[in-house]
Amino acid sequence: MRAIDENTITDAVLDQMASTLDPRLKEIMAAAVRHLHAFAREIALTPQEWLEGIRFLTAVGQKCTSYRQECVLLSDVLGLSSLVNLLNEKTAAESHTDASVLGPYYRENSPPFEPGQSIATRTHGQEIAVYGRVIDSSGRGIPRATMQIWQTDEHGDYDMQRLDPGEMDLRGWCYTDPEGRYYFRSVRPQGYSIPMDGPVGSLVRAQKRHGLRPSHIHFLIGAPGYRELVTALYPNDDEHVGSDTVFGVTDSLVVKITSGDPASPFPDLPGVHYDFKLVAAGKNQLSNRVGADPSRITKPTEAQPSR
Amino acid sequence: MRAIDENTITDAVLDQMASTLDPRLKEIMAAAVRHLHAFAREIALTPQEWLEGIRFLTAVGQKCTSYRQECVLLSDVLGLSSLVNLLNEKTAAESHTDASVLGPYYRENSPPFEPGQSIATRTHGQEIAVYGRVIDSSGRGIPRATMQIWQTDEHGDYDMQRLDPGEMDLRGWCYTDPEGRYYFRSVRPQGYSIPMDGPVGSLVRAQKRHGLRPSHIHFLIGAPGYRELVTALYPNDDEHVGSDTVFGVTDSLVVKITSGDPASPFPDLPGVHYDFKLVAAGKNQLSNRVGADPSRITKPTEAQPSR
Repeated sequence: MRAIDENTITDAVLDQMASTLDPRLKEIMAAAVRHLHAFAREIALTPQEWLEGIRFLTAVGQKCTSYRQECVLLSDVLGLSSLVNLLNEKTAAESHTDASVLGPYYRENSPPFEPGQSIATRTHGQEIAVYGRVIDSSGRGIPRATMQIWQTDEHGDYDMQRLDPGEMDLRGWCYTDPEGRYYFRSVRPQGYSIPMDGPVGSLVRAQKRHGLRPSHIHFLIGAPGYRELVTALYPNDDEHVGSDTVFGVTDSLVVKITSGDPASPFPDLPGVHYDFKLVAAGKNQLSNRVGADPSRITKPTEAQPSR
Repeated sequence: MRAIDENTITDAVLDQMASTLDPRLKEIMAAAVRHLHAFAREIALTPQEWLEGIRFLTAVGQKCTSYRQECVLLSDVLGLSSLVNLLNEKTAAESHTDASVLGPYYRENSPPFEPGQSIATRTHGQEIAVYGRVIDSSGRGIPRATMQIWQTDEHGDYDMQRLDPGEMDLRGWCYTDPEGRYYFRSVRPQGYSIPMDGPVGSLVRAQKRHGLRPSHIHFLIGAPGYRELVTALYPNDDEHVGSDTVFGVTDSLVVKITSGDPASPFPDLPGVHYDFKLVAAGKNQLSNRVGADPSRITKPTEAQPSR
């Protein structure tokens, strides 16, 4: 029998897991055990702290419902969701637009809009224009790419947080034109707090973090032959753009809302000009339709993703 | 703004957590984030695998009730509970008996018994004797130490798994005598399976592990001036003594059930002879009343620990 002490126990666990049939599960669990044990050894985790950790993780799981995912929120505030996105992006060799977290507010079947229309149909706020192209890695426009857009209103609420489940606002989809161009109008989005009434909120408060996400507009862009892109644009004038609680912001996704751009289809409106660069779909076709910014969801809806 | 990529994101998270007021929470969470990120980077965790992990941890939390702790069970089968015990034991400088997991079957207010009595009051099975001394690190007997004992029956069931909540069997407590001696009779305990009907059971099955704990007798021993000892003895003839699913067995706790020991108070019975060595209570007074072997609990009882 193996003599088990605080160092040899790791190998004892790996030995017992060595019979795992699925090679990837075996690899993942072996790494999980090694890192988990190294963590406990490094900080000399005490029984009382262990018990507090167990209680915390239990509370996180029990806070989850069909319309709230506290485990994803925990992954977000620890930077894991963004890290997974970043690792996934690395698998694309060509230059491309960075991804950002999908979040829990994406809905399928949003309404189509024509070029130039506003996606703000039931909302007041400061009107803006958003325009640019969807291009490939050589800069050529991609025609008939589908672009889905969703964002918050001037109070930081998504439609499902203030409207009936059947209604949609501040979201929609369009095709790019033959040159890959897109343009639409909307209102300035507002940032918001992650849900602070659960165990993850308590942790974030104990860490003296503000718990806020900077304002942003979500995009989900696809075209035959290209890897699906899930991303978001972050206006640079939000004071929290450098301290996103879920680490979804990367430099290349920070945009300036400017006025008087002669290239704008709406020169009278403050506008965001952004070109999205897709990569050709290779054997690694993973989209990043995961990662998240689960937030104050007060109204469950059928359209709400059920993870 | 910091440029976030798959390497710098770890420092970005640590920066945001640097305002944590409690220095130990700050230390623990910083280590947790570093090890969690290193894990994801090492195996290049994909979005799909991340989502599977989220679903698994959500299911673990949601399986917990007031009488079942699936998070503790996960910690057990990953060897973390035992590791925490082992780390805690290291804080005692003197030689002492190794600890083992408390498990979820401990009950307070078990019945007292007199030396030589049997704790098997409603059970049939192969009768055994258990005897020895509770001693200090220099080998002197500790008088009037309290010793609590609990174990399974010949089918691997604890009393709460087959009797009414108000009834107890195969558990009890006694004082050691003026020389530190204890002795009682019982029946051979039987090993058992961890609960296999939840997400942790599914993981253990996917790993082709048997999911069994070897047979054992639990002890919780205390005396004024000494650190409380939570441990268990494991008969060496159980075929799973070397492959405990929760890694509670250490060499020094494996015992032989022998016959004809002239030192036995019951020479006609197969017996276990074991001396328990306590350490003086220092400034580090942590007991290890945590760690666990949560198991098939079919009957919740008031006495059931509610963690």
